[in-house]
Amino acid sequence: MINRLVEQIKAKNAPVVVGLDPMLSYIPEHLLKAAIAEEGETLEAAAEAVWQYNKAIVDQIYDIVPAVKPQIAMYEQFGIPGMITFKRTVDYCKEKGLVVIGDVKRGDIGSTSAAYAAAHLGRVAVGNSVLSAFDEDFATVNPYLGTDGIKPFVDVCRQEKKGIFVLVKTSNPSSGEFQDQLVDGKPLYELVGEMVNAWGQDCMGDDYSYVGAVVGATYPEMGKVLRRVMPKAYILVPGYGAQGGTAKDLRPYFNADGLGAIVNSSRGIIAAYKQEKYKKFGSEHFDEAARAAALDMIEDIASIF
Amino acid sequence: MINRLVEQIKAKNAPVVVGLDPMLSYIPEHLLKAAIAEEGETLEAAAEAVWQYNKAIVDQIYDIVPAVKPQIAMYEQFGIPGMITFKRTVDYCKEKGLVVIGDVKRGDIGSTSAAYAAAHLGRVAVGNSVLSAFDEDFATVNPYLGTDGIKPFVDVCRQEKKGIFVLVKTSNPSSGEFQDQLVDGKPLYELVGEMVNAWGQDCMGDDYSYVGAVVGATYPEMGKVLRRVMPKAYILVPGYGAQGGTAKDLRPYFNADGLGAIVNSSRGIIAAYKQEKYKKFGSEHFDEAARAAALDMIEDIASIF
Repeated sequence: MINRLVEQIKAKNAPVVVGLDPMLSYIPEHLLKAAIAEEGETLEAAAEAVWQYNKAIVDQIYDIVPAVKPQIAMYEQFGIPGMITFKRTVDYCKEKGLVVIGDVKRGDIGSTSAAYAAAHLGRVAVGNSVLSAFDEDFATVNPYLGTDGIKPFVDVCRQEKKGIFVLVKTSNPSSGEFQDQLVDGKPLYELVGEMVNAWGQDCMGDDYSYVGAVVGATYPEMGKVLRRVMPKAYILVPGYGAQGGTAKDLRPYFNADGLGAIVNSSRGIIAAYKQEKYKKFGSEHFDEAARAAALDMIEDIASIF
Repeated sequence: MINRLVEQIKAKNAPVVVGLDPMLSYIPEHLLKAAIAEEGETLEAAAEAVWQYNKAIVDQIYDIVPAVKPQIAMYEQFGIPGMITFKRTVDYCKEKGLVVIGDVKRGDIGSTSAAYAAAHLGRVAVGNSVLSAFDEDFATVNPYLGTDGIKPFVDVCRQEKKGIFVLVKTSNPSSGEFQDQLVDGKPLYELVGEMVNAWGQDCMGDDYSYVGAVVGATYPEMGKVLRRVMPKAYILVPGYGAQGGTAKDLRPYFNADGLGAIVNSSRGIIAAYKQEKYKKFGSEHFDEAARAAALDMIEDIASIF
């Protein structure tokens, strides 16, 4: 799958992933109203509005970006109907040829991580049948529990040719509280980066490993160091745009080959119609605003090469 | 909810929580066969078997233990049908008067953690209606992203009078890779423990905080230190039994008042019928074996006081 991601990034000339993080406040009123008219003020209505919103956006962006990253929390908050919309979104994006990164940030002790890996990347056996649950292409994983929390994901990646992005340095303001703490003079995130490099060594695609890393756009100096520490890890970069990261900060996240990183924008694209710049589209054409914002982002990122 | 947990622990005289982590290999063949006969070899069949298994066990233990801890990964691996069983299990346990700790280990940047907190402990607004998604009483939370990943959970806890257990020192063999690293001469888990203590200070129940901690039974020396660092945090202790922790190791996790900790056993109880000791029950009476094992565990833990 890492080969497919790289190939899609090259084909579309866009190291960009669109975060499908549909907060209810982003969804145009006409969509929510229509869903409520149909289903009442229920979780089903919220989930239906999210689905309509996602589908319209995906239809506008699938030909210009290589990947999407649905944030599962935004679906989980609507309970079972929300999870159905998550699954429907994953399936629809795959149908449209997009690589799907499940932003699930799971991680637990060994046997439990194995179940999460099965849920999101692998398969489960029921009797003699082997079935898939959510079946994303990549998942994000939390490293706090160490190797035996990560290993089951790596095993499934190797088996299914899928991939993970391990949280190394996150984009949020307080990420430094633990991640930046110095261990023998070296920040913890660097130690995690070294482990990502080690975990990824025996599951390589053509040029990059199945094991990638999350490094926030908001910490470019650290991105530079981490690029060096994990030369074969694809870096998933959140925090561009709405969170404050700019394109010129991002060059160090890429390798000399112009590959090695994929930059995420969520709100900046899916809720573009709310920005002054894309206001002319109006909330009726939120999907076209998303396309325009995605094209602008692709151009912005291209400017650094 | 922390008050209710303490009250239930006192009433049942059992600082014990049963982990509902139904791996398919634990489920007696007759249950899975019956479900497959009904639904075919599907995720629905697996989820139905898990539900029948859980329900039978809950019916046998609800009067002797204060709480259960469903591990959501074991449900998530069966996709939407699995999540329906998770929700059904949470609801049924609450109906039976049990305190429900959702072992979800979620954690993300601020706005996303807010969605997870809404999903598991809080509510979401759809139009003018305020609705619940999974609605557990407590959730486990991963601290790697720092305060702004935890804060939204704490806010929801305060509002809904619910609680969290933050991962401080986990029970697995490789937990030390990051958690034990020395930061200014002090292990990272201790630093996380100090933060747990700080986060919990302004959301106190009668004697304990809404913000608790996870500290594995497999590291009693660390449990001793962490008890002192977080005097008002309830400690959720995994790793007893199957993972190797013994009752005599657990005294330091409790305060002088005999409170302050609740010990989890999953496999050791729900799959007790597979152990030599409870073999006489046979797989047909797996639920009675679970009750016997829970009673033995309660007695074992009581022996340390």
